[in-house]
Amino acid sequence: MSTATATTKERILDAAEELMTTKSFHSVGLNEILSAVKVPKGSFYHYFPSKEQFGVELVKHYVADASCYKRRMLLTEELDSNPLERLSSYMNGAITGMVEKNCQQSCLVLKLSAEVCTMSDGMRAALAAGMREWNLIFTQLIREGQAKGAMRTDIDPDATGAMVHDYWMGALHRMLAERSVAPLKAAAAFIIRHLTPK
Amino acid sequence: MSTATATTKERILDAAEELMTTKSFHSVGLNEILSAVKVPKGSFYHYFPSKEQFGVELVKHYVADASCYKRRMLLTEELDSNPLERLSSYMNGAITGMVEKNCQQSCLVLKLSAEVCTMSDGMRAALAAGMREWNLIFTQLIREGQAKGAMRTDIDPDATGAMVHDYWMGALHRMLAERSVAPLKAAAAFIIRHLTPK
Repeated sequence: MSTATATTKERILDAAEELMTTKSFHSVGLNEILSAVKVPKGSFYHYFPSKEQFGVELVKHYVADASCYKRRMLLTEELDSNPLERLSSYMNGAITGMVEKNCQQSCLVLKLSAEVCTMSDGMRAALAAGMREWNLIFTQLIREGQAKGAMRTDIDPDATGAMVHDYWMGALHRMLAERSVAPLKAAAAFIIRHLTPK
Repeated sequence: MSTATATTKERILDAAEELMTTKSFHSVGLNEILSAVKVPKGSFYHYFPSKEQFGVELVKHYVADASCYKRRMLLTEELDSNPLERLSSYMNGAITGMVEKNCQQSCLVLKLSAEVCTMSDGMRAALAAGMREWNLIFTQLIREGQAKGAMRTDIDPDATGAMVHDYWMGALHRMLAERSVAPLKAAAAFIIRHLTPK
C-alpha cells in the first residue's frame, strides 16, 4: 500500500472516529464521513468492502491507538516509578480531558459496544479483543504495583484489573448521562483507595 | 386518557423497548415498531409529537418498570431479611436472565446512554434521572445492611451505592462484547466480597 493510499484510508478512519465518538455508528451516514475528508464514495468502497468491514477496521484502528496510549501512560516506568501514582495521573488526565470536551465524548469502544454488539459479530469480536487488551494492561500495572509494595498484595491482579476496567467504563456511561465528571472522580477515588496498601 | 388509548401507547412503548434493547435507537425505524404492534403512522404521532419526545417517554417507561423491579427485589424485607443476600440473589437472577438471552439483551438505559446522550437533552435528562434513582436504591440497601450489621460499616453508603451501580453497568457492557456472563460473575463476586463485614 502506497503512503498516499494509507493516508486516505487513515483519514477516513480518523474522521469516522471523531464523528462517531460524539454521535453513534448508525446515525453517522457515509456521506457525512466522506464529506468531512472530501473523498468520493467509490474510494470508500475501494478501501472497505462494506460498512460492517469498515466498522471492524474502525474499532481496530481506535483500539490500537488507545492501547498504545494506555501502555505509555500506565506501564512506562520512566513516567513515575510508582504504579499507583501512574494510575492516579492517568485517571486524572482522563477527567481533565472529559471536562474539556464537556463530557460529550467518551470512548468509541463504549459507544459502539452498546450499539453494535448484537448486530455485527465482526465488530463485536474486535471490541471484545480491545477490552481484553485493556484489562491486561490494568492487570500488568497491578502486578507491578504489588511487586513493588505500592499496591495491596491480598487482591487478585486479574480480578482487580477487570474491576478497574469495568467500573471505569460504567462511570464513563453515567458521565455521559449526567454530563458531569463526578462519576469518574468517584471511581478514581474508590479505585485508588482500594489498591492502596493498608 | 381512555384505557384503549393507554393500551395502544403502552403497546408502542413495549414493542420499541423490546426492539431497541436488542438493536439500537437509531437503527430501529418507526415502521418496524409500528408493524410490530400493527398501528398506523398517524396514531404514533397522535401519541408522540416527535421521535425525540417518543425517546423521552420510552426511557421514562423503561426506568419506571426497572426501578419498580429493583425496589421489589432489593428493598423488600420479606424476600430475605439479610440485605446482602438480597443483593446476591438479585445479581444472580440477572446473570441467569442474561444467559437465557444469550447475553444479547442488556439494559435499555445502558444502550441508550452510550448512543443518544449527545443528541437529545431530553433523553439524556431522563437517563440521568433513572441512574440516580437506581444509585439511591443501592445506597438505601447498603444503609439497611450497615444498620443490621450485615454489611461493612467502614464504607460510605453513597459512594458504595454508586460503585455498585457503575461497576455493574460496565460489566454489562463487557458482557455484550464478550457474549459471556463472566464479567457479571466477576462483578458480583467483587461486590459481595467488598460489602461483607471483615
